Amino acid sequence: MKSVIGKNITLSLYGESHGTAIGAVVDGLPAGIKVNTDFMQQQLDKRKPKGKISTQRREADDFVITSGVFGGFSTGTPIHIMIENKNQKSSDYQPKLPRPSHADYAAHIKYGGFEDYRGGGHFSGRLTAPIVAAGAIATDILRNKGITIGTHIKKCQHLTDREFNNFAEDIEICNSKYFATLDDTVGEDMQQHIENIGAECDSVGGILETCVLGLPAGVGEPYFNSIESVLSHWLFSIGGVKGIEFGLGFGFADCLGSKANDAFAVCDGKVVTKTNNNGGINGGISNGMPVIFRVAVKPTPSIFKEQDTVNLAAMENAKLTLTGRHDPAIFHRARVVVDSMTALALLDLLVQRYGERWLCG
Amino acid sequence: MKSVIGKNITLSLYGESHGTAIGAVVDGLPAGIKVNTDFMQQQLDKRKPKGKISTQRREADDFVITSGVFGGFSTGTPIHIMIENKNQKSSDYQPKLPRPSHADYAAHIKYGGFEDYRGGGHFSGRLTAPIVAAGAIATDILRNKGITIGTHIKKCQHLTDREFNNFAEDIEICNSKYFATLDDTVGEDMQQHIENIGAECDSVGGILETCVLGLPAGVGEPYFNSIESVLSHWLFSIGGVKGIEFGLGFGFADCLGSKANDAFAVCDGKVVTKTNNNGGINGGISNGMPVIFRVAVKPTPSIFKEQDTVNLAAMENAKLTLTGRHDPAIFHRARVVVDSMTALALLDLLVQRYGERWLCG
Amino acid sequence: MKSVIGKNITLSLYGESHGTAIGAVVDGLPAGIKVNTDFMQQQLDKRKPKGKISTQRREADDFVITSGVFGGFSTGTPIHIMIENKNQKSSDYQPKLPRPSHADYAAHIKYGGFEDYRGGGHFSGRLTAPIVAAGAIATDILRNKGITIGTHIKKCQHLTDREFNNFAEDIEICNSKYFATLDDTVGEDMQQHIENIGAECDSVGGILETCVLGLPAGVGEPYFNSIESVLSHWLFSIGGVKGIEFGLGFGFADCLGSKANDAFAVCDGKVVTKTNNNGGINGGISNGMPVIFRVAVKPTPSIFKEQDTVNLAAMENAKLTLTGRHDPAIFHRARVVVDSMTALALLDLLVQRYGERWLCG
Amino acid sequence: MKSVIGKNITLSLYGESHGTAIGAVVDGLPAGIKVNTDFMQQQLDKRKPKGKISTQRREADDFVITSGVFGGFSTGTPIHIMIENKNQKSSDYQPKLPRPSHADYAAHIKYGGFEDYRGGGHFSGRLTAPIVAAGAIATDILRNKGITIGTHIKKCQHLTDREFNNFAEDIEICNSKYFATLDDTVGEDMQQHIENIGAECDSVGGILETCVLGLPAGVGEPYFNSIESVLSHWLFSIGGVKGIEFGLGFGFADCLGSKANDAFAVCDGKVVTKTNNNGGINGGISNGMPVIFRVAVKPTPSIFKEQDTVNLAAMENAKLTLTGRHDPAIFHRARVVVDSMTALALLDLLVQRYGERWLCG
Repeated sequence: MKSVIGKNITLSLYGESHGTAIGAVVDGLPAGIKVNTDFMQQQLDKRKPKGKISTQRREADDFVITSGVFGGFSTGTPIHIMIENKNQKSSDYQPKLPRPSHADYAAHIKYGGFEDYRGGGHFSGRLTAPIVAAGAIATDILRNKGITIGTHIKKCQHLTDREFNNFAEDIEICNSKYFATLDDTVGEDMQQHIENIGAECDSVGGILETCVLGLPAGVGEPYFNSIESVLSHWLFSIGGVKGIEFGLGFGFADCLGSKANDAFAVCDGKVVTKTNNNGGINGGISNGMPVIFRVAVKPTPSIFKEQDTVNLAAMENAKLTLTGRHDPAIFHRARVVVDSMTALALLDLLVQRYGERWLCG
Repeated sequence: MKSVIGKNITLSLYGESHGTAIGAVVDGLPAGIKVNTDFMQQQLDKRKPKGKISTQRREADDFVITSGVFGGFSTGTPIHIMIENKNQKSSDYQPKLPRPSHADYAAHIKYGGFEDYRGGGHFSGRLTAPIVAAGAIATDILRNKGITIGTHIKKCQHLTDREFNNFAEDIEICNSKYFATLDDTVGEDMQQHIENIGAECDSVGGILETCVLGLPAGVGEPYFNSIESVLSHWLFSIGGVKGIEFGLGFGFADCLGSKANDAFAVCDGKVVTKTNNNGGINGGISNGMPVIFRVAVKPTPSIFKEQDTVNLAAMENAKLTLTGRHDPAIFHRARVVVDSMTALALLDLLVQRYGERWLCG
Repeated sequence: MKSVIGKNITLSLYGESHGTAIGAVVDGLPAGIKVNTDFMQQQLDKRKPKGKISTQRREADDFVITSGVFGGFSTGTPIHIMIENKNQKSSDYQPKLPRPSHADYAAHIKYGGFEDYRGGGHFSGRLTAPIVAAGAIATDILRNKGITIGTHIKKCQHLTDREFNNFAEDIEICNSKYFATLDDTVGEDMQQHIENIGAECDSVGGILETCVLGLPAGVGEPYFNSIESVLSHWLFSIGGVKGIEFGLGFGFADCLGSKANDAFAVCDGKVVTKTNNNGGINGGISNGMPVIFRVAVKPTPSIFKEQDTVNLAAMENAKLTLTGRHDPAIFHRARVVVDSMTALALLDLLVQRYGERWLCG
Repeated sequence: MKSVIGKNITLSLYGESHGTAIGAVVDGLPAGIKVNTDFMQQQLDKRKPKGKISTQRREADDFVITSGVFGGFSTGTPIHIMIENKNQKSSDYQPKLPRPSHADYAAHIKYGGFEDYRGGGHFSGRLTAPIVAAGAIATDILRNKGITIGTHIKKCQHLTDREFNNFAEDIEICNSKYFATLDDTVGEDMQQHIENIGAECDSVGGILETCVLGLPAGVGEPYFNSIESVLSHWLFSIGGVKGIEFGLGFGFADCLGSKANDAFAVCDGKVVTKTNNNGGINGGISNGMPVIFRVAVKPTPSIFKEQDTVNLAAMENAKLTLTGRHDPAIFHRARVVVDSMTALALLDLLVQRYGERWLCG
């Protein structure tokens, strides 16, 4: 259960940045789902580097489905999605000088020098591509059940996007954009900021905020499979994610209970909460309100400024100046990965409650 | 895998606040470990309510071990720890009026009215007691391997504890106290603050910060069992935890890569990092530096102020004024739960790497 | 996942033969199930030793449910069932002389001498008691869905019971008896045979045959969670079980395909098979026919004849003559354990397909 | 956990008989293992159809490794093995007439008609090819640790191979042959028998017997991960396997305890058993003796004789006469699949005990 995640829906992942191919096997999806390869490609396009705010490594990300789909529909058996690597430049990597804040050193110790160090190997962000392809199918299934997911870039240094307002509309706005801010001007400012930072050979981090709309109350499994537990398990797998908070999150530490508590009310014959400080989750279970969470993404460790490191062969201090192609920021590309993992994780919890047959109903 | 967690080390949990007993079964611990029941009781004492900053429900928390220990040593088979409930007052609970921000309503939908609503039932913080008892054994095992864990109360509203300084000493300071701040004065101020807030029929949240010292480099399993993924899965199971961040966490969003990156250096023949913004984890794997994370705990939802809720039987708005015994804050009691779960989660990852036999060596 | 089994339904087991208590935590059962403690006790009574064909250790097997049941109904959270040990006689055991064909020696190596050797410790057949109690709840749930399970003693040396005939009636016959043969005369002969063998200080093995009626077609998960895989995983956990076969089982090796194949036919508008050599399972999935399997149970290793063994302390050959109380046969008592595990295992597969909500519908 | 198996070592499987490719992802193998692709191919060759005793569908089974191997050594991250399908003839399949004793009908109900029915789809024996490739790596790792595995064809109708005699030599004999009998003459007779049966448009079943030599005592995890439980879970996943027995297996039902018990003795300073009726396993744990088990494989369901079936579209009785290419027996080809799964399953148990680092030592 290292490269595999999920209980009823499982995702198995393989590949390295500069190997011949990367891929994922997703199982547990119901039979009879129309597999929308156009949507899968659209989601992959949101993950692709574009313009000056992303790496210049440009992969087509053409995926092939070798199994689990027959005549355009899911068969109910494992779906294997594979993406060939075509645009590797391994000469850019120096195995003996671990890049600061990358997995290089920790992997070197763990794998005893046998790790594929080229381009970060198994730890490369490229492995999120097949997750996005798999997640697109999950997203489609959820949408058919009235459950939608949207993520916007909440913050990048001093620049902050507006809050979610009308959830349904805002989710559509998020999903229609490559650089997903709710406020267009903020989005342009952020992109310019990233570009400037990239020009200075540096990188920058950010915060993503996600909303899940339409999740029925009663999903999530105490004690150990709370929605928070399951989502964070998936999301902390994404390289660069270093924090997750639900609802007010760390803001709860500034609050009194009288302010933080979400009072219940009856509205149109339904129970709602007047505020949503708990992000739609009480006791680990959905309460029917929108699920809201935020994910902190660190600056890309790969920067072009000279850095201090060590020469592992000689065990002495060394200087490292990276060449090659790197992203000055990755949070805008990580957005669709967050969406994809969220869709897969929630699907897994939904199967436990409703059964695999419900999903295709 | 709802009430069970772990792969090589498993924890299985049961019980309700006002049932006859709560307990945990912990399996996968090696044979031949001296089971220190005194230390188990000491750890339980850190979780116990004390003074005016905690609920007036006072349980002895006398645990019994019914299996898995023979002649004072672990047998290698499941250890069952049980704690009887003795001081219940179920009359304080009104099933049809869900308490805001508690699990009551979500559980009601999930379980269709069959949930044991008394005192929060399965969702009660009382269930963390057997986790603490089990965690004490794990903590002992890790300590024998040179791995120590300490958690302090970092923040409560405007009051902030000092930073970790000398890790080894600070961990001892944390573990020697009931109210775990590194700075005594801040600790007294916080306790007074909690007491004042309790007197106002309100409650308050806080942030805990944990340090793990001595974890060898190379622990943690990409892609999906990163240290962050595994720890957050465990920790988000604790009721009231709404955020987790590692290293700089959400602070990464304010940073440039050139500042955030942790440069490597050789020090006394060992590879270290000059800073530790990544909290000892790169690519989901330990890098040998102290593991640092923070957990946000929300204010206790149970407050004595009148609150808005709904009458689920009549499906109409209602007012709720709680009586009974409640904590004005829980983060100080949650501290040892965080320590316990951290110990169990890390032990699980260590078995994969070193085998169960290593643990008793 | 050593002392825990199951995916959507999990069973966690603890205890030793001569410890203070044994027990099980069963989770994943839906809320709102009337928990029939009388039926649980009836099932436990089928496992109890009786007459001269069983050990003279007579335990009341009074179980307590400490959690997961409220007002007589399941709450949807973990059900903990505990049985105290009251009639231990530990003086009968000599730790340094491992009993042939028992777990004693293997456990000694595995646990390095820290195992609880008294009465077989964790390996004792006593641990099946809480499984039977948990299985009784599962059996009840299945019965409400039209799925019934029955097991008879197919064979004991030269004595063979008649074949299943009318499944529904035969399952009732099995479940109405303590010594479950379909043919009364064979049953009496077998009991006399066991008694005779016991009188000669020896023990004897047997074969159990189980029928599951009413399992809908489409249950079971290829590739690795075939019904055969899942059932055998559960059933081989029972001490003394050394073989499992489905349908014709080992008899398939004597067959041609033209004879072994189960031809399909339409009968009353339903697809059936004319024969049922595959035991109701094709490709690991139920086909709607009765599920039929057989389990081989070895003779109780504890016999009163002198046996050769080794003295582990001195590492030299030794003689062992057991005293104490032992069963001359266990297959008749294992019968209800097979039923219980079958019920739990099938329930787990049914949740994946239909969801936990289906079970209470 | 449907198409994924294993805890510390995981195997994830995908593909359909007539899809573009089949494959497996194996994870948890240690880094630094020399990956012997020649041996992988040799093992695949043992699974390949040959001569008149197997199907005329002849696939090259050229595998590619797209990840997890770098410079000829395992990297410690997931190894993906893929085999393209090249020799499909889908026109031979008629979707609406389920083949007796095949998965066709059960899958049709389970997947609602969306299953890929061509050539058995996901249920095809072809999916065992990537398992064999993955198993070859596991076999190599075990061999380096002194653990060897061999399987011979014990029985095919009236023809019976000789018993294991000198285990080390016999394992070599098994592994050196395509048609693995210990006695050459019996092997030739069996092959002629299969050929004759194929000529009569029929098929035949058989029994395989496996020996594992060198497994240290103390491996296997009670209660639910006994060696028997774990091996049977893996092995019953193989299509056509309908029975498994360990040691005397079903023969225990004919035995008295005094004969069945394996007496201990000290031999050359080591504890051994004088007989090995328990097949090297006591209480689910290895006792250091050879592990012995037998697997029953049913006759290939695909025969060329006319058979009764149903037309699922019209829901009426129908006749089916298969054309195309089918095996008159599969047990000789299943042999290496049994070896492969056994190697992977035991490796998984060994990691729990010794850790992943032990494996590469």
